[in-house]
Order: sequence, then C-alpha cells, then structure tokens
Amino acid sequence: MSKHQFTPTHYFSTLGSHPPVLRIADGDTVATTTLDAGGFDLHRERRHKGVNPMTGPFYVEGAEPGDTLAVRLDRLRPNRRFGWSGVQLASNVMDPADVALLPPPPGFAEGSGEWDVDWDAGIAVLTSPATKLARLPIPIRPMVGCFGVAPSGGQAISTATSSTNGGNMDYKGFTEGVTVYFPVAVSGALFFIGDGHAVQGCGEVCGTGIEISFDVEFTLSVIKGKSIEWPRAETATHIVAAGNARPLDQALQHATSEMARWLQEEYALTWTEAHTLMGQCVEYEIANVFDPAYTVVCKMDKALLARVANL
Amino acid sequence: MSKHQFTPTHYFSTLGSHPPVLRIADGDTVATTTLDAGGFDLHRERRHKGVNPMTGPFYVEGAEPGDTLAVRLDRLRPNRRFGWSGVQLASNVMDPADVALLPPPPGFAEGSGEWDVDWDAGIAVLTSPATKLARLPIPIRPMVGCFGVAPSGGQAISTATSSTNGGNMDYKGFTEGVTVYFPVAVSGALFFIGDGHAVQGCGEVCGTGIEISFDVEFTLSVIKGKSIEWPRAETATHIVAAGNARPLDQALQHATSEMARWLQEEYALTWTEAHTLMGQCVEYEIANVFDPAYTVVCKMDKALLARVANL
Amino acid sequence: MSKHQFTPTHYFSTLGSHPPVLRIADGDTVATTTLDAGGFDLHRERRHKGVNPMTGPFYVEGAEPGDTLAVRLDRLRPNRRFGWSGVQLASNVMDPADVALLPPPPGFAEGSGEWDVDWDAGIAVLTSPATKLARLPIPIRPMVGCFGVAPSGGQAISTATSSTNGGNMDYKGFTEGVTVYFPVAVSGALFFIGDGHAVQGCGEVCGTGIEISFDVEFTLSVIKGKSIEWPRAETATHIVAAGNARPLDQALQHATSEMARWLQEEYALTWTEAHTLMGQCVEYEIANVFDPAYTVVCKMDKALLARVANL
Amino acid sequence: MSKHQFTPTHYFSTLGSHPPVLRIADGDTVATTTLDAGGFDLHRERRHKGVNPMTGPFYVEGAEPGDTLAVRLDRLRPNRRFGWSGVQLASNVMDPADVALLPPPPGFAEGSGEWDVDWDAGIAVLTSPATKLARLPIPIRPMVGCFGVAPSGGQAISTATSSTNGGNMDYKGFTEGVTVYFPVAVSGALFFIGDGHAVQGCGEVCGTGIEISFDVEFTLSVIKGKSIEWPRAETATHIVAAGNARPLDQALQHATSEMARWLQEEYALTWTEAHTLMGQCVEYEIANVFDPAYTVVCKMDKALLARVANL
Repeated sequence: MSKHQFTPTHYFSTLGSHPPVLRIADGDTVATTTLDAGGFDLHRERRHKGVNPMTGPFYVEGAEPGDTLAVRLDRLRPNRRFGWSGVQLASNVMDPADVALLPPPPGFAEGSGEWDVDWDAGIAVLTSPATKLARLPIPIRPMVGCFGVAPSGGQAISTATSSTNGGNMDYKGFTEGVTVYFPVAVSGALFFIGDGHAVQGCGEVCGTGIEISFDVEFTLSVIKGKSIEWPRAETATHIVAAGNARPLDQALQHATSEMARWLQEEYALTWTEAHTLMGQCVEYEIANVFDPAYTVVCKMDKALLARVANL
Repeated sequence: MSKHQFTPTHYFSTLGSHPPVLRIADGDTVATTTLDAGGFDLHRERRHKGVNPMTGPFYVEGAEPGDTLAVRLDRLRPNRRFGWSGVQLASNVMDPADVALLPPPPGFAEGSGEWDVDWDAGIAVLTSPATKLARLPIPIRPMVGCFGVAPSGGQAISTATSSTNGGNMDYKGFTEGVTVYFPVAVSGALFFIGDGHAVQGCGEVCGTGIEISFDVEFTLSVIKGKSIEWPRAETATHIVAAGNARPLDQALQHATSEMARWLQEEYALTWTEAHTLMGQCVEYEIANVFDPAYTVVCKMDKALLARVANL
Repeated sequence: MSKHQFTPTHYFSTLGSHPPVLRIADGDTVATTTLDAGGFDLHRERRHKGVNPMTGPFYVEGAEPGDTLAVRLDRLRPNRRFGWSGVQLASNVMDPADVALLPPPPGFAEGSGEWDVDWDAGIAVLTSPATKLARLPIPIRPMVGCFGVAPSGGQAISTATSSTNGGNMDYKGFTEGVTVYFPVAVSGALFFIGDGHAVQGCGEVCGTGIEISFDVEFTLSVIKGKSIEWPRAETATHIVAAGNARPLDQALQHATSEMARWLQEEYALTWTEAHTLMGQCVEYEIANVFDPAYTVVCKMDKALLARVANL
Repeated sequence: MSKHQFTPTHYFSTLGSHPPVLRIADGDTVATTTLDAGGFDLHRERRHKGVNPMTGPFYVEGAEPGDTLAVRLDRLRPNRRFGWSGVQLASNVMDPADVALLPPPPGFAEGSGEWDVDWDAGIAVLTSPATKLARLPIPIRPMVGCFGVAPSGGQAISTATSSTNGGNMDYKGFTEGVTVYFPVAVSGALFFIGDGHAVQGCGEVCGTGIEISFDVEFTLSVIKGKSIEWPRAETATHIVAAGNARPLDQALQHATSEMARWLQEEYALTWTEAHTLMGQCVEYEIANVFDPAYTVVCKMDKALLARVANL
C-alpha cells in the first residue's frame, strides 16, 4: 500500500470516463488538493470555470464493473481561511407563497456571504455582509460535497447533480474518518473528488455550505464481486445508504431499499426481520434539498447491529 | 393551576369542533388515558372502532382564534405490556420496482407483529412472529403519535392525517418533557390526544410504531395574541417546527418557512441573518412518510440560539 | 322520477354529514342554484362567507355505504353576467426561481380580474384590469368546480380540497351532459354542489376559473352494490377516472389504478389486456394543480371501448 | 437548401459532444434511418446494445451557444412491420399498494408484447401474447421518442432521460409535420434522433410505445440570437413548451414558466395578460411519466393566439 502525492493540473466538471490523472494499486492512498465549488484554489486564484471542479479521475487497478470501490476519507482539511456561502434560503425550500414576499438581498457583493474559517480554533465567522452574526462563531465540521466514480454507458454527469455513482450529494456526514462505498461501473472505477465545505447544515438549504479549498487524503480499495446499487458509507456510529433523486420521496425510497438489501445481505436478516427492525430503529437525514438530485440518507446504528450480528 | 383527573367514556376519530369532555382553566393539568391506535385499552378491550381514537376534546378557557396553545407533555407512559406493530416496509417507502418483488408476509396473525413492552426495563421485545429478533430487546422511548386542536371552518379532519392544527404527525421527538405549540382556530382550542407509541423509528416506515395504550398528563396554557402557522415545539435541546403535507418536499417547505419566521419573530434576526444561520446550522428529521400527510420537522439547536439571543 | 325545485337558505364550506336540506327518491331530479366561490349570488350579494359554498346536502333514499351515486349534470348555467378570476399564475405552478422575479400585480382591486360573461353569445370578456385582452372574447364552457358526497368516518372535509368523495376537483371536463359517479360513504349519500366556472383552463393555474353563480339541474341515481374507490365519469366521448392527491404523481397513480380496475370490472379485460391497451391508448388531463389536493383524470375513448365490448 | 441521404454506421446512447457524423448547412434536410429502442434495425438485426440508440450527431453550420435549433419533422415512417411494447403498467404509475397485488406476467417471452404494424392501413395489431386484443386493431400515429441536441459543459446525458436539451421526452405529439425547437449549447448544435414509436398513449405508462425502426427526414435551421430555456414546438394547432424533470409537479413548472415567457416574448403580452390568458385557456399533456425525467407539455391554441396577435 503506497501513498501518492498528487498535484492536479486540470479539473473536470463532469463525472465521466475521462483520461485518468493517476493509476494506483488497490489499497493505495492519495494525498492531493481540491478547488472550491467556484474553481478557486488555496490562493483564491481561479483555476477552473465549471461548477464543482473535480480532482481526478484516479484509476484503481483491478476495479471492474460489478465491484465496489471503498473510499476511506483519511483527511479533509481546509487549506485557506477564506470561505463563502449563500445567504438566502433557496426558492425551492420555502413555501412558494413566501418566495414572492421575500425582499431582494440588501447590497451583497455577488449575492453571497464571506467567512473567516479558523481550522485550529474549529470555528467560522461571517465577515460579510456586516451583520450581528459576525459576533457568533459557529463550529466547523469539514465535509466533502461532491465525489464519486464514473457512471456507466459513456455518461458524463454534471458535478451539479448526483446519481447511483455518487456525485454532488452534499451530505454533511461525509467527514474525515468515514468510509464511503460506490458501485464500480467502468474499469479502474475512476474516482473524482472536490467541493469541500468547512461546514454545512442539513439540506444545503442556502445552496452552499461554507465553500473552501481542501487538502485531502483518501485510500481507495476494491471489494471484488461485491455489487451495490447506491452509495453506502460507514461512520463511527452508523451504516448509511444514500439515495439521489427528486423529489425527496424518491430519494428516500432508494435509500430505504438499499438499506433493506444491506441488512439482508450482510447481517443475516430475513426481509421480515430487516423491515421490522427498520420500522422501530431506522434514522434518516436530508443531505441536500437543493441540487438537481436531492439526497436522503438512511441510517442504522452500529451498536444495535453489533448485537444483531450475535443473534 | 389545578390538576384534573379525567376518565374518558367516548373517543373521536376526527379532530373537529366536537362537544368538550372537560373545560379547564388556562394553565391547568389533565391526567387521563389514551387507547392504542386500534382502539384497545389497557386491558386489550376494544373501546372504539375508528382509527387513532382521541381522548378529548379539552376546552381551555380563554383560548381564542389567533392565540397559540402550549401543550407540555408532562407524562407519557405505556399502561400495559402488550404492543403491536407492522412488520413490512410500507409500499410507498420502497423503490416501486422492489414492491412488486416482495413476497407476502409469512403467516402473521392480522399481518402484524406483537411486542412485550417493559417500561421499567426500558425495552421492548418482539414476541410474534417468531424470529431471531426475539433475542434483540430494543430500547423504548414513548411518544405521542396524534394530538392537536380543532381546525378552522367547521372541518373535522381524520386522525389518520395531519394539518396546520397538528393531528397524526407521528414524530418520534414528541416525548415526555417536550412542549408543543398549536395555532388556536376555535374558542377553547379543543385539544385532543391519543395514539401512543412505546417507540418508533424515523418515518414510521412500517406504518406504525409499537402501538400501545398510555397514561398521560399534560398542561395546557394559552399564549394570548401569539399567532403561528404550523405546530412548533421545544425540546431539551432544540426548537422544532413541523410541516405536514405531501410530498416530503412540501412538508419541508412548510417547516422551513415556519422556522425562518420563528427566528425573525423571537430571536431578533433579520431575514438574512436567519437564512444564513439556517444554511449552515439547520437540522431536519423525517417524522412520518406514511400517513396521508407526511411530516418533516425543522430544528435549531437551543445552545446556539442562546448565544444568538446575546448578540 | 320527480323533479324538485329547491331554493337554498344556507350553505356549507365542508362536505360532511350535515342535516339534509332535501330528501329525494332514487332517480329524482333537482333544480336549484349555487353561489360563486366567494359566496356571492346572482345579484352579487354575499350569502355565505366560507370558501366554495355548497348547496345541499341532498339525501337520496336507498343510498348506503358501498353503493355508488350517479350524478347526471343536466344543466349548468351562469345566472348572472359578472364573473371574476385570478390574473397571476399561482406560485406553485411556476419555476420557484421565477416566483421571486415576478413584480407585484399592477393596481388590481382585490387582486383579481373581472369578466363580462355572455351566455347567449357563449363568450367572456375581461373588463378589469384594463388591458388589450378586453378586445379578445374567449369562448365559455360552464363547468362545476366542487361537488361530491359526504366522506366516511365523521369527517367534514373543506371545500377547498378534494378526496375519494369528490370535492374541489376543478376539472374543466365536468360540464353539462356529463354523468359523474361517487362512492357512497354514508346513508343517503348526501350530495353537495357549488363553485361554478363559466370556463377554466387546465390546471386552474391562476387559482380560479371565471367564478360565477349558477342555475343547476342534476339527477341523482343509486347504483346498488356497486363499489368504486375514486370518482368516475362518463362524457360524450370518454370514460374518466379522477385521482385527488398531492403531488401530481400520486393523483395520477390513483386515477390510473382506478381506470385499470374499471376496464377489468366492466369491459371483461384481463389485467394484461387492460394494461396493454392503456399503454398505447390512455389519455390524461391535469384538472387542477392549485388546490390542496391536485386532480389528474385518466381517460379512455368510448369508441375504442365499444369495440372492446364486442371482442 | 440541399438534402442529404445519410446511412448510419454507428450509434450513441448518450447525447453529448460526440464527433459529428455529418456536417450540413443551415436549412438543409437529412434523410436517414433510426434503430428501435432496443437497437434493432429494419431487418430486426441488433446494431447497437445501449438503450435508445441515436442516429447522429449532425453538425449544423452556424449554430452557436445561445441560438435555437429548429427541427422540422418532415417524415417519420416505420420501416418494418414488427413492433414491440411493454404489457404491464409501470410500478411507478399505479397506487403503491396495487403494485404488491399484481400477479407476475403470464408466460411472456422477454416480458413484452409483439405487434404487427401496418403503415398503409394505419393500424397495429397485438400478435403476442395471445389475447382477445388480437381482434382489436388500434390506430397508429408515428412519433419520435428521443431527440435533441448536445448539452452544455461537456455532459453526456443518457438517452434514457431528458433535460433542457431534449432527449427521451416520449411525447406522443412529436409527429410528422411538427417543428421542434431546442436551445443550442455547443457549436454546431449536434442533433441526434432515434427511438421511433408507431403509436404511444399519454405518459408511456407501460414503459414503451410500440417500438419500431424508422425512416426519417428532418430539416435543421438555426435561429440566430434566439435563446430559449426548454424545448418548444409548433404543431398544426398549438404552440407547445416541454418541461423535463421529476416529479410531474416540477416538469409542469418548467413547461408553464417557458410558455409564460414565450407569450411575453413573441405575442406582445404583458405578464399579467399572459398569465390571465393562460389561466382560462392553457392546456397540458402528460408526455411521459416513466423515464428518469418525466415530461409535461404546456400548450396554447394557435387560433386563439392568431387573434392575440391582432389585438
């Protein structure tokens, strides 16, 4: 298992079968950097014009369609202090009648907020527009908004959205230490990553987290012959299945079906046992309700499942 | 502030302007009992045939349309050991294609599961159907599924569903100690309560929690001249706004708009400050995704808001 | 079969088990009047303050739960020249981002348009606000927006919305000559009618048709032992099944399932035949996309079905 | 304006910036052929394995981003007699509870129906499975299911779905004689076409029309400097705006907003006039409720609009 230091020279705004920037072995680790969602690097220089520029793709030897790629997020760190965000609830998350009542934003440059992100102190402070929130540091929790693998069938899917192959899921739970699983659709899997957020609330309801460039490290491993339909993840406390679609109802259906399959496949539960347990113990999070595909995650507690494994 | 011991003799399966069973003063407490969702009492005798039978309505002196009724849930206790639940994910929470694949439930009496609920131990155990889950006690967390006030305009709304006046919201966070706020639409508010669950997962995805009869105590207070649009609540840690509608997207819009109003009305935030803060700090829970109206709750952390109040 | 002339003295804004205003025999005809959606009569005097006031309920002897009530719309005629309408697309039918861009309506009294409705000429002309549309007479096609029967379980459902029992479906196809079928939920069926429109586009996208008071005649017949789940209708050219729910997807599911049942029950088709035929020949209309429950109708051509009956 | 006879040698299952198969001048006509949705040609030989294989792309000289491409469908003709279709309503168009009740299809090869399509007689007859529908010829009305232009930003969008650039809209109104307009996103527009149906009902509710290979002719013209957001069309009787998204509500919002813009841009209506006219005169069709993006079309009558033009 070697560790690769990789310096990107170009970026992509689609997840597709683009030429790999690096080929690595199964189990290798990559340390690299990502631009912010607008294409700006650690020096606030614009390096790419498309939305959510991706570093990658990384080709993993041995990954073939029908396998699963495990992505361990070893390190997710803002590499500058400047972050930016939307400051108005998106028009699709408020009552339609309220949208018409809303006054225009009062004098914002580019309609957006600016933040000072202090990684050592673990906080972010709104520096513009000037409001009393400047006196309210909020805790940060760095997460990756957009990552995933190349989709099937020659598709090149915009990094504005997400699908079975991952993409712009904008889930605040994709933080350092989490392992995420993607269904491999092409040889080498072709992994992409970008769109770091210093922090983000549920739903990404203002259209952004605190957008920032990152230093990242991740380890890519192939699970041969393991087939999944939607992204899965394992956190310190939960197993997580993500569904990406509109409306929220459909995203939830995908995530729920994926979790029901997971419990039957890997925890030796019958479908009745899996359903009954989910009925009284399942949890959901609304990851994003802003992007073209919304994301709902379905979660089960690992402590509970550890007891299930011993039944 | 007096405390009333009330023994119900009849129940309602709609929230409407029915004759009050008791008139109480503003700030009084009521101790009474509720049937389970199927109409069965603590002796498992069927006392009412409609869905989610309600104890009440309780008329609160001084409550008038335009006021808010505060309901403090002082005590929510299962008063028997027998509980029941669905054991199959509802057809609307799975991928449509998966629904067609599902085998019929294997030999259940009444298509449902039976549980032994041990309040003292704080656990519930599945006793039927016979599966290995019988060896997996799950922790209980009693909550009230359906409660609220009479709606406006002479409506009588089925306790299967919910609306601006509350009703069958099936939110697992409506537990002992929580205070819930409802918009008053008729003189006396006319408060109803029932449908206790020993525990329930997010979404009520099997169509039920562990359904059980309850001993309940609650305190009803009128907030004169305070007008809200959707149910609100305050827990130990969060303020909560509930939106009730289909699809989930619309339920989320109602809850989000209500929270944005709340922050502006009571925390002295401008709309820009409220939106910006929500963008990075808001939380959601999917309360139910089964009833005719789904319920999404929008939450903000009280510790954070305590600091907001000092800005 | 007798014909009753009925003059209403009061109205309801819910469909519920209210005291009947008239008891009639199976097959009888009623001639009466309806207020407009705002409660104004043929003299533009306000007679009722609630939304969509209903004339009725009419108790039909012999109708019992499980039967179907057939309502033949014998006559639907505006009884005054003044009509009114909304003049702005509802906020839920436009792109959310567009709603925020829309300027406020320029100087409308009551935010609404006024029309001169000429029944003899078959046209309506916009008289206010003053725009060049005043020179564009549009053809009228009188239809009934809200009608139906009392729902089950003691519910009283607002005439703002609709459900399995009918209600505010706002379908432009419910015109003179059409027969509509409702599932009977209470003894006597308890039929209500009101909310006439001189004309309305698909979807009721401005929130109204041209709202007007009506002279109406209808014939009520009981189909004993015939049970349906959603309102059905027969026009000169089509059979029609209506689904009422949010979002449109769910309304369409109800209407589609009801049509599939109808084809199997009454046209001797297997489910495969019914589905295959629907796949290549079905039609839909979006009746309303404004009310709390949207309405989608699923239609099949009667000429085609006449040939099916001869297979 | 010349006419090109083009014989395809390869096909695409995405709409993207693929190498053009032919470069033509603005206003030129192309005569070519398309495979059926499964990749089979006029001899029922399989020529491509992906879904909805596209003939093209055709590069139109002078087309640049910000222009509109007008596609006149000069000729759409089945070029063989064999057609196939689904024979079961899709699981997402029925009530979820009904899906679980449905028996498995009785003995179909490939789960699908087979049809004999007689272009001269204008009918199609179901030949398999053997049912009494074999005695019910249905009228055909050839239409194109999937066509459009390359999307922006390097995307390659699956021909299973649709977006602002067109794609798999499956609208039964896209028939011979209709002119369809697409927003140009890349130099040359890059037009694709395929997925012919002998006939299809509204919604494509069985997942297919009668799928068949086509001889096609179309004329491509550039409208310089004309910018549209969603596909538009003009039929013999109507102007049409298409919205592609899930759920139906959102597809309808896109189509409605596009029509409102059209009326203001090209018919000299103020927004109030456009909205008021739509309120009483707009029509909708549900084009498809099966594909990953649903399609709703919003229509206005050309005879009415001719009078508007003279106001």
